[in-house]
Amino acid sequence: MTKTLSVAQGREYLAIPGPSVMPEAVLRAMHRPAPNIYEGALIDLTASLIPDLKRVARTKHNAAIYIANGHGAWEAALSNTLAPGETVLVPATGRFGHGWADMARGLGAEAQILDFGKSAPWDMERIAEALRADADHRIKAVLAVHVDTSSSVRNDVEGLRALLDEVGHPALLMADCIASMACDRFEMDAWGVDVAVTGSQKGLMVPPGLGFVFFNDKAAAARDALPRVSRYWDWAPRADPEFFYQYFGGTAPTHHLFGLRAALDLIHDEGIDHVWARHERLARAIWAACEAWGQDGPLRLNVAGRAHRSHAVTALRVGAPQGSALRAWVSQNIGLTLGIGLGMAEPGDPAWHGFFRIGHMGHVNGHMVLGMLGGIEAGLTALDIPHGPGAVEAAAAVIAMG
Amino acid sequence: MTKTLSVAQGREYLAIPGPSVMPEAVLRAMHRPAPNIYEGALIDLTASLIPDLKRVARTKHNAAIYIANGHGAWEAALSNTLAPGETVLVPATGRFGHGWADMARGLGAEAQILDFGKSAPWDMERIAEALRADADHRIKAVLAVHVDTSSSVRNDVEGLRALLDEVGHPALLMADCIASMACDRFEMDAWGVDVAVTGSQKGLMVPPGLGFVFFNDKAAAARDALPRVSRYWDWAPRADPEFFYQYFGGTAPTHHLFGLRAALDLIHDEGIDHVWARHERLARAIWAACEAWGQDGPLRLNVAGRAHRSHAVTALRVGAPQGSALRAWVSQNIGLTLGIGLGMAEPGDPAWHGFFRIGHMGHVNGHMVLGMLGGIEAGLTALDIPHGPGAVEAAAAVIAMG
Amino acid sequence: MTKTLSVAQGREYLAIPGPSVMPEAVLRAMHRPAPNIYEGALIDLTASLIPDLKRVARTKHNAAIYIANGHGAWEAALSNTLAPGETVLVPATGRFGHGWADMARGLGAEAQILDFGKSAPWDMERIAEALRADADHRIKAVLAVHVDTSSSVRNDVEGLRALLDEVGHPALLMADCIASMACDRFEMDAWGVDVAVTGSQKGLMVPPGLGFVFFNDKAAAARDALPRVSRYWDWAPRADPEFFYQYFGGTAPTHHLFGLRAALDLIHDEGIDHVWARHERLARAIWAACEAWGQDGPLRLNVAGRAHRSHAVTALRVGAPQGSALRAWVSQNIGLTLGIGLGMAEPGDPAWHGFFRIGHMGHVNGHMVLGMLGGIEAGLTALDIPHGPGAVEAAAAVIAMG
Amino acid sequence: MTKTLSVAQGREYLAIPGPSVMPEAVLRAMHRPAPNIYEGALIDLTASLIPDLKRVARTKHNAAIYIANGHGAWEAALSNTLAPGETVLVPATGRFGHGWADMARGLGAEAQILDFGKSAPWDMERIAEALRADADHRIKAVLAVHVDTSSSVRNDVEGLRALLDEVGHPALLMADCIASMACDRFEMDAWGVDVAVTGSQKGLMVPPGLGFVFFNDKAAAARDALPRVSRYWDWAPRADPEFFYQYFGGTAPTHHLFGLRAALDLIHDEGIDHVWARHERLARAIWAACEAWGQDGPLRLNVAGRAHRSHAVTALRVGAPQGSALRAWVSQNIGLTLGIGLGMAEPGDPAWHGFFRIGHMGHVNGHMVLGMLGGIEAGLTALDIPHGPGAVEAAAAVIAMG
Repeated sequence: MTKTLSVAQGREYLAIPGPSVMPEAVLRAMHRPAPNIYEGALIDLTASLIPDLKRVARTKHNAAIYIANGHGAWEAALSNTLAPGETVLVPATGRFGHGWADMARGLGAEAQILDFGKSAPWDMERIAEALRADADHRIKAVLAVHVDTSSSVRNDVEGLRALLDEVGHPALLMADCIASMACDRFEMDAWGVDVAVTGSQKGLMVPPGLGFVFFNDKAAAARDALPRVSRYWDWAPRADPEFFYQYFGGTAPTHHLFGLRAALDLIHDEGIDHVWARHERLARAIWAACEAWGQDGPLRLNVAGRAHRSHAVTALRVGAPQGSALRAWVSQNIGLTLGIGLGMAEPGDPAWHGFFRIGHMGHVNGHMVLGMLGGIEAGLTALDIPHGPGAVEAAAAVIAMG
Repeated sequence: MTKTLSVAQGREYLAIPGPSVMPEAVLRAMHRPAPNIYEGALIDLTASLIPDLKRVARTKHNAAIYIANGHGAWEAALSNTLAPGETVLVPATGRFGHGWADMARGLGAEAQILDFGKSAPWDMERIAEALRADADHRIKAVLAVHVDTSSSVRNDVEGLRALLDEVGHPALLMADCIASMACDRFEMDAWGVDVAVTGSQKGLMVPPGLGFVFFNDKAAAARDALPRVSRYWDWAPRADPEFFYQYFGGTAPTHHLFGLRAALDLIHDEGIDHVWARHERLARAIWAACEAWGQDGPLRLNVAGRAHRSHAVTALRVGAPQGSALRAWVSQNIGLTLGIGLGMAEPGDPAWHGFFRIGHMGHVNGHMVLGMLGGIEAGLTALDIPHGPGAVEAAAAVIAMG
Repeated sequence: MTKTLSVAQGREYLAIPGPSVMPEAVLRAMHRPAPNIYEGALIDLTASLIPDLKRVARTKHNAAIYIANGHGAWEAALSNTLAPGETVLVPATGRFGHGWADMARGLGAEAQILDFGKSAPWDMERIAEALRADADHRIKAVLAVHVDTSSSVRNDVEGLRALLDEVGHPALLMADCIASMACDRFEMDAWGVDVAVTGSQKGLMVPPGLGFVFFNDKAAAARDALPRVSRYWDWAPRADPEFFYQYFGGTAPTHHLFGLRAALDLIHDEGIDHVWARHERLARAIWAACEAWGQDGPLRLNVAGRAHRSHAVTALRVGAPQGSALRAWVSQNIGLTLGIGLGMAEPGDPAWHGFFRIGHMGHVNGHMVLGMLGGIEAGLTALDIPHGPGAVEAAAAVIAMG
Repeated sequence: MTKTLSVAQGREYLAIPGPSVMPEAVLRAMHRPAPNIYEGALIDLTASLIPDLKRVARTKHNAAIYIANGHGAWEAALSNTLAPGETVLVPATGRFGHGWADMARGLGAEAQILDFGKSAPWDMERIAEALRADADHRIKAVLAVHVDTSSSVRNDVEGLRALLDEVGHPALLMADCIASMACDRFEMDAWGVDVAVTGSQKGLMVPPGLGFVFFNDKAAAARDALPRVSRYWDWAPRADPEFFYQYFGGTAPTHHLFGLRAALDLIHDEGIDHVWARHERLARAIWAACEAWGQDGPLRLNVAGRAHRSHAVTALRVGAPQGSALRAWVSQNIGLTLGIGLGMAEPGDPAWHGFFRIGHMGHVNGHMVLGMLGGIEAGLTALDIPHGPGAVEAAAAVIAMG
């Protein structure tokens, strides 16, 4: 690697796929004394969050907030829908599909995985086959990862609902929107999703620590039919509390609630449709740059088809060890942190160093994306990694478009 | 109520039994951009927390951190030790004993409750009887609430271990230290506690959002013998992670970790023994004031015996509706928030308004306690609640003692 | 000194007469990125401050903001009203009267001081004599310290105006309200004050760094008649700017403006009349405690007459070395910082250690004052300083009054 | 202007030439309660600042801190060196030279201006002529603006000292380093500068509110020879205080001192030589981009010669109304704020809209500069402003250089 004068001292830019960049307003809102948790302003603030969360998930149904990360929200969703011994179908397009399946197994469920590799979206035909093969409807739920953060594949959740209906399968459609909520368009009710799961630290722009589960009446009925639900994960009192503490199954996550209020204000002030459009525009700018760097060279996008790429995260392949070298260079030299290539190879395998990911979720705008792309351009140059010209200009042109 | 010129505009003082007053250093440490969660400083910071948490719990054994509140930590502890159908014994001295028992039931366990009312500590004789009656050792664990936040009763956990040993019962001794950790003396290893549970928002002085479970080898063996443990609650990978994300079963609670680091620095800079001594001294000051206000009048301490009173929380009885009136007065007139009387009567019952609680846990010192007591003195005066003289002076004398 | 277990770890309470306790809302408002200083929100925010500042000073005339401390604001006021060789009359009731006089001398003016000692208010007769003796009106201005922070004497500014009118002297009446603004009642226009000076760090609850000068048309005419005014201190463009930067004679004090906006919101949400009433009530509570501790013993209030005591700061005499010992004890043992006895004796003189001061200005409420008094009670006890009983109860009774 | 989907929601980037981007560490350090100003940690903290400030200015002589902006620091420097009626020589290369001259006039001095326009550096020959023409040494001081923030011209201060020595003129050499300190190399002692002036809000990365004046023994002697110095501006007690409050001529600027400590830590941790090299590298990257956009087109650098360009600020010409249009576009569409073109035309003159400036001072690194340049690229494209290709790549190549 060329020795370079470090010009890193300045604002750190964390361009990993979660946690995302926290808005100043969110961090400021969290910097306050502990509030009363039995009376007073926190009660009203919490009540105000529920409808605003539902507006983000595009649902008129129910919302439950958990003090938990995304994995906790996964377990919450499963705990309210599955009894030990029941079966889930998991079409996987990256590490996180496998992860959710594993979580189901930890609760005693059977997980039937359809593995579509690490670069391609669901093959609807194979899913249809699996559903049709399940003549006695042993499959209780389909665990559908909308955007797999590891591969940056975006899947067609709406199409999956159409498929279930077409096949006539009664399974619950459960969507993992952890990476996509408030980034990629997602319409829970319109798309016929029964349960949607997300976390606080990506499109919702709040530090990790909250998980969210949205569920409709069909899912509620599934929970009511279970012999038992863990008190902590039970969504019923959380979604319809008689007493304030039931929102959170105990002590409220006070400071996260302040932050979430600020974040939802940002989202709704902008408008969720505009938020989605912004993410799409910025994703297209990133793709334009990546395509200019090369489509057949060492650096290329992990997902070939535009329709299957997330607007929130982009996985890239550059060959080992250049993925890790590039991340190290931009971190040490220009103050930019890129995401590791997660789940594309095993840790320990030299191939592990051949990937990296860009997070572009939440609080992200034009100059940030252009700075990140300019930084990769500098890193490719410094490391003599072959790449085509005009990448940042191509991205700027997308951003400049009418 | 007398009409009073409000002199409330100023620093709010939240003297409820959790969340406690957050130190400036903790809030400042949390006001920072999101960090990388796969590499860099957060990894070292997290590793530094584990031994420092164990020093607070006085254990050389294992620590697991959960993104959860205290109820989540309860469920975590139970999930690693109980299979459905197994039995726990719960000696209850307030609402929280019943709550933990209910959590066990939610996991399919049987909970045998010994109810000691709302003002008295455990009766060791009754516990001994129950243990002796369990000749075939169906009781898998005893759920021992060290300090019940609702009643402010403090129980003799060390004595319970002696009792178990004397009776020769193999049940796990599981202690709820949510209200007591880093306030009242607690010695996990020396006292023979197998599992200890706490949360972030009381003596640990961090916003609600983290739960902690400490466990020894006997408890670890119990977990290993279970047929299945939920992935989220499983303490094994959290206490001994191969990869960083396993500490938290997924995304790390980044900002809480920054806050926890600052809080543990405060605790260990002071010294845990000194922290306990400070809480004891301040508790004695509060008791002195309360005893001066009256021992037979309307206002009196909920717990008669000093040995059975918590050093972190104090429940008081003042008769309905004066408990609620006093809380309202100090809030509106002098900027002080006192805790509601939790679990002493049912909501809706007029008697509910006859209690209040004082939190004196964590980041609390002499002028705070004296201001809180002076504020109650003013409220008692304004509301014409009979009370004896010299209360604040009695408290000041305790604080002034050599 | 008795050895005491320190119960200081907790919230620090800075009860010195400035800087005062900063509200959370002010500090939070200042924790934000730098704004544009030529366009955008800062311009509107600044414009909003001017009328709100005038409402605090009770004037319809002009306001100039300086990046400066109170001494800078003193110099600003003098620079706009005095030419070298002109004379000011300074009735002094503590160190700060002498300080302002010295500042005038630094600008080449003559300062005629009437010294009334360190515990007594102005003697109007002596001032009348001095004015009458000035038959040819060489006295250009009277520098009137409303509250002298060092002695806590409060002077009758309204009466001084009456006196000037009665004597028929044309001197400008210039008031130093640094310690009194937004604490003790002050009515610039109604009282006939021509120039009023204050700073940000006391009743205005913003960190030190801003000075304010209010002036009426008579004062404006005095400035216009000067041969020359320094560009930095010239109040004309600041009070009536054509371009934004003229408000501040250059770069705007961005973060202080954010803080000041938050502080003025607090003041006007409460109402300036209520702010004054709160300060008066809390001052009376403090006096009640001090009078209970003793009126003839070692500890006593510096100012005998209630009408002449500030509502923002209280100076006490306790005898050397007990003043310093008490301050050290409460700082080390209970987390409370009291003010040094400023200007009552010379540094180096053992008598210097016989005084201390309490700040009770700005963001201060009932529990704070009671905690501060309780803390002094504890310190007096620990140090065996004789004191009467019932002090905190007396204060609480004042606060409880209808 | 083309209608564009705004992709502005995200981190604001203020790329104006002061205030500069504040580091998180600085803002966090300022978010704390008021400290004691007579005793305790603030005293030591302040003492630690002085040597560290001198290291930044590269002087072993004296430093005085003022609560003031840069204009205040200008007036401070003049107040300690000039008596009314004395003369200063001011070689001006932009608005700020004229501003400092005007400040001198406000103090009663004569200002002899040599105007070199708005795009060119000093002409040493003309300065030499002026000095030689001053045979009786009426010129007391030369006011030398190192970098004029309005034009981004950087002048040869070291060469000016050589010229003074060559001509044998005893005038004080006073340098305005407001825009250059801790950005462009500046060596007070080695270059023979007698007085250097700067402010807090540019290379020093602290909010506006502090001014700094460094002075050597020759300058100190000049002050001692003056008949009178204003108390507020007098540098003698500030640079050599007997009592703490003399550092600041009154109340200390508490929160700015906390911030300054954090900023100086950042600077010295990086090393002042490295700080200069970073600024130079980033400036060269910006120039490379600007030169690629065009050297003969509408968009061009204001200063032709590299040796005469600041490393902290860059003024550009793009023709009216495109300067203002571009600033508006990047602000509204990508979250980037560029500086107005100050002093290049009069407000009201349409030509005013033909300029803009980029601030790249202080807390600035590679990804920020590349994002800013990418943002301008997008704006030029959106607005159809002709510009050459390869600009951001050219900048990235400079950053990637070994």
